[in-house]
Amino acid sequence: MREVAILGVGMTKFGISSKTNLEMFTEASLDAIKESNIEPGDIQALFLGNCLGDFEEAQAHMGPFAHSELGLPVDAPATRFESACATATVAIRHAALLVGAGVYDVVLAGGTERAAKMGTPLATRTFAMACQSQYEASAGLTFPGVFAMAAHMYASRHNIPLAELKKHMAEVSVKNHYHGSLNPKAHFQKKIDVETVLSGIMVADPLQLFDCCPFSDGAAAVVISTAEKAKDLIKNPIYIAGMGQASAGPLYVQRDLTRIIARESSVKQAYSEAGIGPEDVDVVELHDCFTIAEILAIEALGFYDYGKGYPAATKGETTFKGKVVVNPSGGLKAKGHPIGATGAAQVYEIVKQLRGECDERQVEGARIGLVDTLGGDFGTVCNIILRSR
Amino acid sequence: MREVAILGVGMTKFGISSKTNLEMFTEASLDAIKESNIEPGDIQALFLGNCLGDFEEAQAHMGPFAHSELGLPVDAPATRFESACATATVAIRHAALLVGAGVYDVVLAGGTERAAKMGTPLATRTFAMACQSQYEASAGLTFPGVFAMAAHMYASRHNIPLAELKKHMAEVSVKNHYHGSLNPKAHFQKKIDVETVLSGIMVADPLQLFDCCPFSDGAAAVVISTAEKAKDLIKNPIYIAGMGQASAGPLYVQRDLTRIIARESSVKQAYSEAGIGPEDVDVVELHDCFTIAEILAIEALGFYDYGKGYPAATKGETTFKGKVVVNPSGGLKAKGHPIGATGAAQVYEIVKQLRGECDERQVEGARIGLVDTLGGDFGTVCNIILRSR
Repeated sequence: MREVAILGVGMTKFGISSKTNLEMFTEASLDAIKESNIEPGDIQALFLGNCLGDFEEAQAHMGPFAHSELGLPVDAPATRFESACATATVAIRHAALLVGAGVYDVVLAGGTERAAKMGTPLATRTFAMACQSQYEASAGLTFPGVFAMAAHMYASRHNIPLAELKKHMAEVSVKNHYHGSLNPKAHFQKKIDVETVLSGIMVADPLQLFDCCPFSDGAAAVVISTAEKAKDLIKNPIYIAGMGQASAGPLYVQRDLTRIIARESSVKQAYSEAGIGPEDVDVVELHDCFTIAEILAIEALGFYDYGKGYPAATKGETTFKGKVVVNPSGGLKAKGHPIGATGAAQVYEIVKQLRGECDERQVEGARIGLVDTLGGDFGTVCNIILRSR
Repeated sequence: MREVAILGVGMTKFGISSKTNLEMFTEASLDAIKESNIEPGDIQALFLGNCLGDFEEAQAHMGPFAHSELGLPVDAPATRFESACATATVAIRHAALLVGAGVYDVVLAGGTERAAKMGTPLATRTFAMACQSQYEASAGLTFPGVFAMAAHMYASRHNIPLAELKKHMAEVSVKNHYHGSLNPKAHFQKKIDVETVLSGIMVADPLQLFDCCPFSDGAAAVVISTAEKAKDLIKNPIYIAGMGQASAGPLYVQRDLTRIIARESSVKQAYSEAGIGPEDVDVVELHDCFTIAEILAIEALGFYDYGKGYPAATKGETTFKGKVVVNPSGGLKAKGHPIGATGAAQVYEIVKQLRGECDERQVEGARIGLVDTLGGDFGTVCNIILRSR
């Protein structure tokens, strides 16, 4: 396999937008293409992530239409990927695999979603289709419920009083809102305190409003090429050091909601390919769709032993100058969560961090970054490890 | 790139089914796995095609659930692909590319759809989302309308009286129903005559009922490995000789509906990679979603010059012992069209033909076969060329 690099990256501001998916994806892509010092005609394939375009704007088969907006060549195929929240990460992984393999030299990958536009009730209901419909969604399960169950199981398994766990969960939200306040592209750019989280309306016990990420509109895109080619085009390529993707069945098969088996497998693949371990990671963008999700993630990714990660935010270990900076962008919680774009925005943030372009939220001396995206109720996990030279 | 082969293939009977997408895909996949002399635990990745699972049974993110039904390993990632009608072909192409590249050695790819279950009016309406929603679907365009316009343009451009063209289109339907009558897995297994076609209800002028393929329920799957490995596992591997995929924008960009530019590009890639031309193809499964679509396809694939393909069925040139046997399975018209499964069923048929396992519908001495799948209103085309040793 050839060494693979990320050239340019682009993303829209996340939040509430009046633009269509195609408009948002075009905006993000043209920024990425411009940063790459290439033209749309140089792109050899498009890997487009989108989850619910058919419900958002009656648009399936979005690949060729994004392709057309960008003016890509006819012989550059456009393919739509969908893997729930991990959609864009999976699209980027496939793009990078095919560049590494020598099938393509320069490709565009990313995702777009108009999830805020739908409104939270409809988005929650339609997005529950990423659970298993026959046995899970039909029983009334939606994602707040999934993660609420995980929080209860975590408290029970590790003998943590729920009230204590909730305070630590609140600190995750406070930390990510603080990070988001430093990110001009974040959906929410306002600092909050623990009291705000603990006094929020109850969504799914024990998850209150500020334990939950928002649905957002937004798009993000990256240009991927060989490392060889990257050197000729730009002065600061960021390299893909390792990737992983794994799958697991419905919750009744997984059983233990506190250890996400697909994540354990996926990140092991990525660490192994990169020849590193969690101790080498300086910065991570991970899947904090709910506050408990960040706690589960920092454990399965190897930063903490199981049952030991919950006080990390409270102790300041996951913010700037901490043990590992988690979600400097604000994460899904504050940067926002346009489902099919989220993974690409995580890659965007890590690339910017490794280039040292993050101003106030810059993680000092960051050289190795990890992307972690979880799809559905733990059915898909995809990881990408990036490094500067 | 390593040489790639197809081991086992499986498909459900197409038609109206009471099974879920997961049940149908599992049935097809287990047949394919059994034929391959492997176990589910040997599969290293799943490439699953599905278009409208969210509308059919409120099921998005179908990859991991299919993965779980089959008992695949956690470290074998499952990814859902969607490229309208070309969905499964695109999934299979990506699977084959990654096997060729050395990323995987043995993978499963295919698709499933429960389109009949929705009923034709709802399926027609929801599937119109594969047109461009902002400018096309919002103007009332559905697929019968797209191909009706193509038929009118074909008649006009080539100076063929519409009544004459319609008779030749009817012969395509008669031919494909005849082929379907020889296929125990076809949705329709009944021969019809030209009179039946020309007396059918009008769907979208000039397309009458029997000019249109049905929506079907069904699934199909194939196991793909390296040619090297295939030799050790089965006695009759079929080899992937070439592949192509291309994309084009909405109709207002494409303009000429009689020449599908994505098909011209895609099949050129496939012929070039295989080192053959149309004259070398013995059998083809192509995208006859409407009778006019088969005529457009045999021209863009190079079997006929533009404007010369319309009498091919009438002359018997596209049936057994003809110039090139087109849709021996019955095609979308008679075998049926479970959208996200169609491309995999085309591969299934070509593999069976090249193995000589097609009984009454066997194309004698078939050595090279072509798969052609069209997605949306000409937005995606994917081609796969297969050959026996």
